[in-house]
Amino acid sequence: MDTSAPSAAELAAAVTEQLREYLHERRRDAAYIGADYSVLTEAVEEFVLRGGKRLRPAFAYWGWRAVAGTEPGPEVLRLFSALELLQACALVHDDVIDASATRRGLPTVHRIFADRHRENHWLGSSEQFGLSAAILLGDVALVWADDIVAGADIDPDAHRRVQRVWSAIRTEVLGGQYLDIVNEATGAETVEAALTVNIYKTASYTISRPLQLGAAAAADCPEVLAAFHELGTSLGVAFQLRDDVLGVFGDPAVTGKPSGDDLRSGKRTVLLAEAIQLAEQSDPVAAQLLRGSVGTELSEVQVKELCLAIESVGALAAVERRIGTLTRRALEILNTAPIDAKAKAGLSELARLAANRSA
Amino acid sequence: MDTSAPSAAELAAAVTEQLREYLHERRRDAAYIGADYSVLTEAVEEFVLRGGKRLRPAFAYWGWRAVAGTEPGPEVLRLFSALELLQACALVHDDVIDASATRRGLPTVHRIFADRHRENHWLGSSEQFGLSAAILLGDVALVWADDIVAGADIDPDAHRRVQRVWSAIRTEVLGGQYLDIVNEATGAETVEAALTVNIYKTASYTISRPLQLGAAAAADCPEVLAAFHELGTSLGVAFQLRDDVLGVFGDPAVTGKPSGDDLRSGKRTVLLAEAIQLAEQSDPVAAQLLRGSVGTELSEVQVKELCLAIESVGALAAVERRIGTLTRRALEILNTAPIDAKAKAGLSELARLAANRSA
Repeated sequence: MDTSAPSAAELAAAVTEQLREYLHERRRDAAYIGADYSVLTEAVEEFVLRGGKRLRPAFAYWGWRAVAGTEPGPEVLRLFSALELLQACALVHDDVIDASATRRGLPTVHRIFADRHRENHWLGSSEQFGLSAAILLGDVALVWADDIVAGADIDPDAHRRVQRVWSAIRTEVLGGQYLDIVNEATGAETVEAALTVNIYKTASYTISRPLQLGAAAAADCPEVLAAFHELGTSLGVAFQLRDDVLGVFGDPAVTGKPSGDDLRSGKRTVLLAEAIQLAEQSDPVAAQLLRGSVGTELSEVQVKELCLAIESVGALAAVERRIGTLTRRALEILNTAPIDAKAKAGLSELARLAANRSA
Repeated sequence: MDTSAPSAAELAAAVTEQLREYLHERRRDAAYIGADYSVLTEAVEEFVLRGGKRLRPAFAYWGWRAVAGTEPGPEVLRLFSALELLQACALVHDDVIDASATRRGLPTVHRIFADRHRENHWLGSSEQFGLSAAILLGDVALVWADDIVAGADIDPDAHRRVQRVWSAIRTEVLGGQYLDIVNEATGAETVEAALTVNIYKTASYTISRPLQLGAAAAADCPEVLAAFHELGTSLGVAFQLRDDVLGVFGDPAVTGKPSGDDLRSGKRTVLLAEAIQLAEQSDPVAAQLLRGSVGTELSEVQVKELCLAIESVGALAAVERRIGTLTRRALEILNTAPIDAKAKAGLSELARLAANRSA
């Protein structure tokens, strides 16, 4: 039995290698559809290969190790890499939905294709072309992700278990995305509404379900799946709350996003909900400021004012406390979970990484 | 052995019943994600159940009958009904791409959600909300379609064969959609460019692959799949050419689309390519008229002028000849194909219906 574990970087590289091979095969097999289509599938490949921390496959890997004890073979890593293609769809469609201009420091897909349209002096609207190409590119990524899972070379029982998790993860992440835009549209102010989005758009999607996918691929272990559900929810929400804090207080040089980005976009975060709720009680002027300016065009000075308000009403501290509590809870669940010791160590490390990052 | 066959209407009703059951189950199982999400999944259900001729499942049915001789059970009809959910994704995303206002005589999904946003006086842009909801709704339909296929209750060998066809159909239809927008953007004028779109966006997607899906579910029969490829390509292109003729010359009262719709939208059809090519040779003024006005805002009078030009240069007759040739070719292939006699009769009827409809 092989009990050595790869480093995070080795694991990410192995997943990227699976994606590289798979995308190469798929693009070669689809070449008969035409040279113009190759441009789109090449953009899928570039988007998937150029970045990403391969966090979801890493959780799937540790989910597998939690019950299997042995290293997964290449065919299982291929299966886990489907999570990155699903993520490509989610990001590309999300960027269209949020009308985002940049992703991972580069222009978003819809902008790349709009620029191509503009540079070639093509007919019609460049923006509409960019939007259309991005929708189709996301669809291709989703379809190819599904094809990996459907074609996974694992035994039929494992396949059925994996498919159940795979079905849930996609339905949930789309739910999280939709609830997110509804919250933004309705100006939802409760912590609860923001937490529901965090659970489905982040916690389930990034941690619980990837862990379960790995475990389900390895064995029939309902009690482990249940532990992963609890663990992933706590840790995943902590992960998202860290993201929310960085989205407001993060250093643009480190996060790659403009400072106060979430305030300008009007994202309905737990941080904002806490701030409004606390301000209601202690500082009505701050509450009015938050309600009136979040989601509008903000100057640097206004962003600083809002940051100050969020901090002074105690919302930043409250969210940091939540992150602490959730992370401790996650580590407790991990300690008592009926899983392999090596996996516990690997997951603790990943958990700390996820909750205490600066970008 | 049961050799009776259902009528087209009975078959469509049986497919709709499978969709109704499946969507009911999926929506019930996803209810935990939240009441707001139920609004989106309800819209998926409404879109799928409210209309559609169930043409693709019908071809899958006849593909099955071609090699099986017996009626498919409910679990196989469920599998075929996945084609309608895939179609829901294709239509909803296509309507966003084309910025279409109506579909099946009703407002398109992105418009329905934009209206909901507007009526509720929600925050932000109603158009962006409608667009976002439509992207996510299409994604849900695609994901649920894939879940049907992945979970189909058929033997493992049949499953592998079905999955291969399913993989191809989705990659091809997305290719066809992308080639279509590139042709529109570049103002592609060749018959060949338009035909390529017809093959992947229509022929493969509507006929060849659904036929193959049905046959693959029933038996391992590569020679039948090859015949269906040829048959479907001829018949599917004929089907699309009929659509192109109706898009220009169709009666709005019958087609449900404004007259000259394709001329206004600048769709790069074979009909238009033929017209430009023929006009080049015989009527340079008509060629200039076609090039200069297709894809612009056209008055009723201008539409009539363009129709006249397309007819007088001989393009309408040329396309009708193509439809005739392709349909005859399809029926020849059908006659000599190594398949069940009852299925031949059923498919001939479906073929004539597809090529000679008025809407």
